[in-house]
Amino acid sequence: MRRSLVFPMETDNSYVELVPQKNLDMEAFTLCMRVATELAKGNREIILFAYRTLYHDELNVWREADGEYSLYLSGDGVLFHLPELNTFQTHLCLTWDSKSGMAAFHVDGKRSVRKVYKPGHKVQKGGKFILGQDPNSFLKDFESKQSFIGEITDVNMWDYVLSDAMIEALHVGKRMPRGNIFDWETIELIVNGNVKVITEEL
Amino acid sequence: MRRSLVFPMETDNSYVELVPQKNLDMEAFTLCMRVATELAKGNREIILFAYRTLYHDELNVWREADGEYSLYLSGDGVLFHLPELNTFQTHLCLTWDSKSGMAAFHVDGKRSVRKVYKPGHKVQKGGKFILGQDPNSFLKDFESKQSFIGEITDVNMWDYVLSDAMIEALHVGKRMPRGNIFDWETIELIVNGNVKVITEEL
Amino acid sequence: MRRSLVFPMETDNSYVELVPQKNLDMEAFTLCMRVATELAKGNREIILFAYRTLYHDELNVWREADGEYSLYLSGDGVLFHLPELNTFQTHLCLTWDSKSGMAAFHVDGKRSVRKVYKPGHKVQKGGKFILGQDPNSFLKDFESKQSFIGEITDVNMWDYVLSDAMIEALHVGKRMPRGNIFDWETIELIVNGNVKVITEEL
Repeated sequence: MRRSLVFPMETDNSYVELVPQKNLDMEAFTLCMRVATELAKGNREIILFAYRTLYHDELNVWREADGEYSLYLSGDGVLFHLPELNTFQTHLCLTWDSKSGMAAFHVDGKRSVRKVYKPGHKVQKGGKFILGQDPNSFLKDFESKQSFIGEITDVNMWDYVLSDAMIEALHVGKRMPRGNIFDWETIELIVNGNVKVITEEL
Repeated sequence: MRRSLVFPMETDNSYVELVPQKNLDMEAFTLCMRVATELAKGNREIILFAYRTLYHDELNVWREADGEYSLYLSGDGVLFHLPELNTFQTHLCLTWDSKSGMAAFHVDGKRSVRKVYKPGHKVQKGGKFILGQDPNSFLKDFESKQSFIGEITDVNMWDYVLSDAMIEALHVGKRMPRGNIFDWETIELIVNGNVKVITEEL
Repeated sequence: MRRSLVFPMETDNSYVELVPQKNLDMEAFTLCMRVATELAKGNREIILFAYRTLYHDELNVWREADGEYSLYLSGDGVLFHLPELNTFQTHLCLTWDSKSGMAAFHVDGKRSVRKVYKPGHKVQKGGKFILGQDPNSFLKDFESKQSFIGEITDVNMWDYVLSDAMIEALHVGKRMPRGNIFDWETIELIVNGNVKVITEEL
């Protein structure tokens, strides 16, 4: 059994807070999720993941209005050109490592080019992780035109970089290694507004 | 061996009535069929399935003129953005559950996003199920510009929601579970007008 | 473990020199590499591989501005129409044989049409092999608008033509036969400018 989050419509108040298992400064991470949306390319930007501390957007993942994907670690972002999201589930992972600055997406198990982004940077602890909205201040000031519509499941996060082979295995359904920041099987979710939590068979 | 229905041309009088095994108020359903058509996107709407009681369109499935797919349960419908039907067979399933209101298409075994549609609604019993035409009144008043042209086979229906894994298995040829509203292997078909019933090897 | 070269940005001074195991006049060759780039089709030409002697471009491989691929053996080139490179790794091989003049690309293990190109020609020894830039004179005069941006790994070269089956096997990960001009596992690389050498698990 697995929980799946359905965001049925555009709103400025529906979101899900993800409660992390540990609260740490991150010098590396792997973030994975399965995403389906019918918001067609070129329409508007879509927030896919937001982690915000009191004064900063610490780690945001976007599908930009022009169809590109982006990662922002407090400040300027880095862009990737990936296949379009669609009504069927796409397995999306994102890795980043402070030491080398290497960032890459993995789409259905295939890695994008690596890009050098903010070597030496650290993601600060003490923030809130949310799906569905982009907080312009701490858990408020949401814009409906940035909200997510569609379905998200299997959100897992690690404080290290998984290998290409491990991510390929996750894509085809392996459930190891379990996320040590978020583990979707046990994660505590705090639902706000119009979000349906479905329990689905696997 | 399996029967396949060929609708060779645009008409306002050719259709096939499907005789159900039981006649019940439906609080959930799964409807599957294999469909091939060369009516290209954008041309016109195409009726894929119609269930009508004396005064109401109870359950209609359309390919809309703009290429979207829709489900109508007496009243406003819900739209899905799916890959285009084409000259090859597409395995199309549609699920809906009154309790949650969750509706989804499955195209060749892959599920679309789920949408919330008419939670608490019930599909009324006592109607007629037809392929090929949209009845604007009870089994008459057909419009040729809405008729289906192409081929339909393997129409099965259940009064419950099949799991993603079961639908994936049906797509690749598994013939279980057998439909409890329609079972294509044993279904009684009442053919009207210019529709060819082909028996094909599997 | 395998080294991977990341060229993060457009420059006119970043390149990697590959030191060959032997220095010979080549009457045939197979050149393979894995390449990922987000430089979209139609933007500009991209140098994929350059081998230059003091006065001549001896063996250059390009992605042309119009999306075609080309091989130049000192003088006019030969063009191939192949699938577009993208953010995921493409396994690209190129074979040429002086006796027949047969040239062909292999993309992810699938061979292109063969083309007849410069039968009787010989590739001269004594040059420099480089990735990332096209030298308009001997290891200088680079143009940033021709530079490579993205990721290259698994560059191997042989002084004979590998069979289609051998190249298909290399594509799926077989590491035999080892390149006798370049063997990526042991090759000496001389890095210049902004190129990151990543060591990745396999």
